[in-house]
Amino acid sequence: MLRYLTAGESHGELLMGIIEGVPAGLLIRVTDIDNDLGRRQAGYGRGGRMKIEKDTVRILTGVRWGRTLGSPIGLMIRNKDWDNWRAKMSPDPSFLNTAEPVTRPRPGHADLAGALKYGIADIRNILERSSARETAMRVAVGAVAKRLMDEFGIGITSHVIAIGGVYAKGDRMSLKEVRKRAEASQLRCADQQAEKRMMHRIDEAARAGDSLGGIYEIIVSGVPVGLGSHAHWDRKLDARLAAAIMSIQAMKGVEVGSGFGVANKPGSQVHDEIFWGPKGGFFRRTNHAGGIEGGMSNGEDITLRAAMKPIPTLMKPLRSVDMVTRKPFKAAVERSDVCAVPAAAVVGEAVTAFEIAAALIEKFGGDSIDEMKRNHEQYRKYLKDRMGVEEAPV
Amino acid sequence: MLRYLTAGESHGELLMGIIEGVPAGLLIRVTDIDNDLGRRQAGYGRGGRMKIEKDTVRILTGVRWGRTLGSPIGLMIRNKDWDNWRAKMSPDPSFLNTAEPVTRPRPGHADLAGALKYGIADIRNILERSSARETAMRVAVGAVAKRLMDEFGIGITSHVIAIGGVYAKGDRMSLKEVRKRAEASQLRCADQQAEKRMMHRIDEAARAGDSLGGIYEIIVSGVPVGLGSHAHWDRKLDARLAAAIMSIQAMKGVEVGSGFGVANKPGSQVHDEIFWGPKGGFFRRTNHAGGIEGGMSNGEDITLRAAMKPIPTLMKPLRSVDMVTRKPFKAAVERSDVCAVPAAAVVGEAVTAFEIAAALIEKFGGDSIDEMKRNHEQYRKYLKDRMGVEEAPV
Amino acid sequence: MLRYLTAGESHGELLMGIIEGVPAGLLIRVTDIDNDLGRRQAGYGRGGRMKIEKDTVRILTGVRWGRTLGSPIGLMIRNKDWDNWRAKMSPDPSFLNTAEPVTRPRPGHADLAGALKYGIADIRNILERSSARETAMRVAVGAVAKRLMDEFGIGITSHVIAIGGVYAKGDRMSLKEVRKRAEASQLRCADQQAEKRMMHRIDEAARAGDSLGGIYEIIVSGVPVGLGSHAHWDRKLDARLAAAIMSIQAMKGVEVGSGFGVANKPGSQVHDEIFWGPKGGFFRRTNHAGGIEGGMSNGEDITLRAAMKPIPTLMKPLRSVDMVTRKPFKAAVERSDVCAVPAAAVVGEAVTAFEIAAALIEKFGGDSIDEMKRNHEQYRKYLKDRMGVEEAPV
Amino acid sequence: MLRYLTAGESHGELLMGIIEGVPAGLLIRVTDIDNDLGRRQAGYGRGGRMKIEKDTVRILTGVRWGRTLGSPIGLMIRNKDWDNWRAKMSPDPSFLNTAEPVTRPRPGHADLAGALKYGIADIRNILERSSARETAMRVAVGAVAKRLMDEFGIGITSHVIAIGGVYAKGDRMSLKEVRKRAEASQLRCADQQAEKRMMHRIDEAARAGDSLGGIYEIIVSGVPVGLGSHAHWDRKLDARLAAAIMSIQAMKGVEVGSGFGVANKPGSQVHDEIFWGPKGGFFRRTNHAGGIEGGMSNGEDITLRAAMKPIPTLMKPLRSVDMVTRKPFKAAVERSDVCAVPAAAVVGEAVTAFEIAAALIEKFGGDSIDEMKRNHEQYRKYLKDRMGVEEAPV
Repeated sequence: MLRYLTAGESHGELLMGIIEGVPAGLLIRVTDIDNDLGRRQAGYGRGGRMKIEKDTVRILTGVRWGRTLGSPIGLMIRNKDWDNWRAKMSPDPSFLNTAEPVTRPRPGHADLAGALKYGIADIRNILERSSARETAMRVAVGAVAKRLMDEFGIGITSHVIAIGGVYAKGDRMSLKEVRKRAEASQLRCADQQAEKRMMHRIDEAARAGDSLGGIYEIIVSGVPVGLGSHAHWDRKLDARLAAAIMSIQAMKGVEVGSGFGVANKPGSQVHDEIFWGPKGGFFRRTNHAGGIEGGMSNGEDITLRAAMKPIPTLMKPLRSVDMVTRKPFKAAVERSDVCAVPAAAVVGEAVTAFEIAAALIEKFGGDSIDEMKRNHEQYRKYLKDRMGVEEAPV
Repeated sequence: MLRYLTAGESHGELLMGIIEGVPAGLLIRVTDIDNDLGRRQAGYGRGGRMKIEKDTVRILTGVRWGRTLGSPIGLMIRNKDWDNWRAKMSPDPSFLNTAEPVTRPRPGHADLAGALKYGIADIRNILERSSARETAMRVAVGAVAKRLMDEFGIGITSHVIAIGGVYAKGDRMSLKEVRKRAEASQLRCADQQAEKRMMHRIDEAARAGDSLGGIYEIIVSGVPVGLGSHAHWDRKLDARLAAAIMSIQAMKGVEVGSGFGVANKPGSQVHDEIFWGPKGGFFRRTNHAGGIEGGMSNGEDITLRAAMKPIPTLMKPLRSVDMVTRKPFKAAVERSDVCAVPAAAVVGEAVTAFEIAAALIEKFGGDSIDEMKRNHEQYRKYLKDRMGVEEAPV
Repeated sequence: MLRYLTAGESHGELLMGIIEGVPAGLLIRVTDIDNDLGRRQAGYGRGGRMKIEKDTVRILTGVRWGRTLGSPIGLMIRNKDWDNWRAKMSPDPSFLNTAEPVTRPRPGHADLAGALKYGIADIRNILERSSARETAMRVAVGAVAKRLMDEFGIGITSHVIAIGGVYAKGDRMSLKEVRKRAEASQLRCADQQAEKRMMHRIDEAARAGDSLGGIYEIIVSGVPVGLGSHAHWDRKLDARLAAAIMSIQAMKGVEVGSGFGVANKPGSQVHDEIFWGPKGGFFRRTNHAGGIEGGMSNGEDITLRAAMKPIPTLMKPLRSVDMVTRKPFKAAVERSDVCAVPAAAVVGEAVTAFEIAAALIEKFGGDSIDEMKRNHEQYRKYLKDRMGVEEAPV
Repeated sequence: MLRYLTAGESHGELLMGIIEGVPAGLLIRVTDIDNDLGRRQAGYGRGGRMKIEKDTVRILTGVRWGRTLGSPIGLMIRNKDWDNWRAKMSPDPSFLNTAEPVTRPRPGHADLAGALKYGIADIRNILERSSARETAMRVAVGAVAKRLMDEFGIGITSHVIAIGGVYAKGDRMSLKEVRKRAEASQLRCADQQAEKRMMHRIDEAARAGDSLGGIYEIIVSGVPVGLGSHAHWDRKLDARLAAAIMSIQAMKGVEVGSGFGVANKPGSQVHDEIFWGPKGGFFRRTNHAGGIEGGMSNGEDITLRAAMKPIPTLMKPLRSVDMVTRKPFKAAVERSDVCAVPAAAVVGEAVTAFEIAAALIEKFGGDSIDEMKRNHEQYRKYLKDRMGVEEAPV
């Protein structure tokens, strides 16, 4: 069982994370994590904060001389502008009331529901935690999961396929090709033509004081057949992935493979026919299923898509009502991101990676990397025999 | 904490379910459950089995004289044609090999991945559990959850909005109106014009030996503000609902509120502005968020949509490969459902109801209905004061 | 992850259980389970009900032709005198009030706390579930776990070491010797001399209308080194076993190895020195630790002891107060068991077996018995190399 | 749901903890936690490290201006001698092999089982996490739980009742009296006569290079009736408490109320008779049950006892075998604690407090302290009516 908790407020001193259940002997370096933290902060259309704060992680526990111990891994990301927030956000009661309470809930945020649920007068007490700032720690956790995946030859990447109504071409590409193009793009978009139009749309939105959402795709390659299970609803890999994706701030939809497109085609065009070859054994020529059938990985690439709503903090005012005076007001901000879809894609990778790593540990046991690899190798041998092939397929 | 397990194979003797954590004193009758079991079996385009087997539940434990005891509720649904399957599916080893093993995996099913994962030679050992037959028990479990919701004035319904590329009009309707129309429709479709075209499309597919998927929507009305939480990723109500929906056999996508549509509009048109009135307090005039902001219910209707792939068991043959001979063959069946979207919608209601009930118990405590109602009433009084209104909003 | 739920009331129609997470391919026969159900019902000093009802299980799901499918295993034990209780315990509301409510809480039972917690007027609604009758299903679940253990050469047994202040001699014996003697004894006592005195004490108590508690010991042999973990508190094998044992009705204490005896000796006499031999590798000559160090199995026998309070249903009256009239009364019953320690020992085996099986699945993965065995064999090879021995130690 | 994870190695930079699920609005100060950290470090017979390191906590997240936000609470305890360990324990791979590997497993520790399970060559990689140092963070977590309990008038304390075979008198005392005496004692012993003899025994053991274990008792007072549940095995309060206690390093036994003593007395002397008075309603004159019947709190004081083995790190040598050379050696240390039972008692309080707090949140809902109190007050009113008394009993 792999699990994690995160803690930390957007303008608090730091973000914390504890990952419990990582096998012993996994090589993890700060740079592995920082690289993904940097990827999360990139992207055309980001506001000022992203530039101020270059996130870096500290590994505090669970790793010695670069290798995991099997004990919980503690991570920390400091907030760079903590000095400006110390009094306002201090845990210390002596700072009580050193900042004005926030009483004006913003549409599209957790503000109103949170303040009512938790009986809180100062909306800051909600918005500090509901902020997408928290996803920085999830990216760090996901980077650890990616290291585990990497030991088994499993790769993951993401790319943006729509922003503000501009869609990328849907060419099928290998993970390697997608990765190369996405990393080179300011918007993680693999289609250069579309990228230009997306940037133009972002500029328009910026001028209008508006914001944009979009769609990104996650691709996981090299996944062994048989992660997840059909046997009980809460073991299904697609169910777990859907929860992980939907738990990211601002996501409103998630789909696997052809997703909502399956509603438009007959079964004969949707289901992936099964073939066999003497090298890799069973395979498919299409992947409408997105690599998951019956709640299990089927050996093909896992593909997920998520829809992100536009950032709700706009310069263009939205109507709302003060919680104390009950007077209407117009919610607006001075400065903000216009579009965070590329960043969300990196978060999507992270939460997906965590679920894949958890499923690997369930399948192969999880005490040490060496033991996992031994067990994985046995599974490959079994599959080789079972499929009557020259080479093991995973 | 509310939880449940289901058990049972498609052609086994019966399906079992145990729901643990239902508060004491809830009125539950067999008819409450059977009504939903019947709704799951209805729908234009269903094959023969649905007609043979009219499911009925037996409540075996946890209920006395119509009221829950607070102890686990045991449910059972017998398979009507068990006599024909007894030898083939018996737990008794003396029936060993009384049926031919299934060695031909069907595209779009759990067959291939399951047989490889579990090291099973006879694919029947997988397909019996991966079958959507299991959802009958989930509908029964959901019917219990609906009874709990009902005590708090929370209603739920579903309707089909697309089949095989034919889409219903997107008119906004009250839950009551949707329910009335959907229940009167052979396809749970609230748009009579679309329904006709859908039926036509189903007839066409039937003639072609093909199958159709589609999209349905779930609406939950009367949900108090503050179910779920923004505070940790795995407490978010939308994440839990996404997992629940995606865990249903054949689902490939799930969205909340405007869902994937948010990718096409600027933030100023997506976020629901906040208003206040002296009667109900805070409210919205739009509901793009689908009733959930920051992982919490915001008091508006919760709306979810799910995409279902076409049934993978087709009369039209799909290519596959025998697992023993590794020879290709063409997978086809004699007789099957063409479209099960209306049935899936009823299952969607059930799993949604379960998550809502679980969230209610977390919010209000869960020892008895009386205690839950006392606590709920206190929350309403608090909201009334907090919002400065004449009437409590939930 | 292995988990289970039980359901059912003491005088309800039946007991149900669902075990989820058992690997595929495990041989399970009704007789394996019935044998343990019979062992639970044996024992000198049991009252009439045990004789009336010879429990037998039905395997309803998850097993085909004697082998598990990897899907949830559904079990059922019918109550033999259901006909006499049908009206009184029916789920059907039409039987409402066909029995007098129980309003007199019995000392030592869940009655009073349960009725207050759940807001229930009729104490029967509590006592039916709190009854030790429920442990019959746990014994059935444990019998499945024992089958899994058996595949890995792990044995388990129990014996009674004290009843009503009479203690068995503490001779160290092998599991085989203990099992032989305990199975031959009417009280599961391995010390024939003590057994006689225990029976005498039971006769005395019966004459006095009183009841007796006692202590039993569980021994698990052949456990591989490294089940459980030191890395997080809730992964510790001793913690999980303590919870399992304490969750059995009427248990008031649990200890591992020397248990409370460790309070009386210096460290130099408590810790088990470590030796090495070319055959089995590392070993101990003492086992004060009871086979668990640092929350992990260390390869020695796991030994647990549990203290059971006397049955609280006495012929000798105990004072209590009616919940409606608030008048004192004397709680007494006509006929009851005097001592159920031997039965509790069998339940203790069952819940211990479940935790061991769960830990095995965590360590070795859990999709199929074949896969578990492959992984187990790899671990043995690794241990052989690591320990530099001729034979693998587990 | 309340949960927590801890992280950190004994000689690592720090210990971390995240508590998730604490309601909003709870007042928490650093001093509340530091006070318990200090209590854990006190006690006659502690070695040098306890004097060097005066633990203090930092609250990093989840608290603002002294009050909880409902978001995860992040805690940190720095290790004071980190500078001396930095290279040896650094997560940074550039420090690789700057310390000799530990290859000699110590009897009574996790060393041998851990090194084999995790495939680790350097035993330090196990012992750093298995060390009781980790309990400092559990004490910090427990201090937060105590603050929650305090809001509901629930008190908790502990006292030592045996060390090295010297037992305190078993006089029944109120929590207040026990607390006063235990806090004044160098050994948390409420019996001054016994304390002297215990200290004498500790001096003897110190001279002999040996160590001592013992027994402590936890008392929880003011617990409302109805925490935990009889309805399912893993909801039972005694089961959860047993796991929590047994999960503490070096515990070998746990008992509730009369514990193992129940094996020696007939039922008529073990079960607590029930009385009623017009002030407090139902009550008992004895408390053999230790405040828990049927897995639920019954309104009386909860009493638990735990047996701690002697510290396994001795100056007196124990035989063991080097894992690399397989040569025997004698395990001994220069300097160590002789007895840590008083410290363990404080840890026992902490883990007990956590479980009680978790059960309170389950019973009364957990969004804010105000809401919990409202619901608690409603429950008290209900109990008042139900019991027909002048004053609510909890």
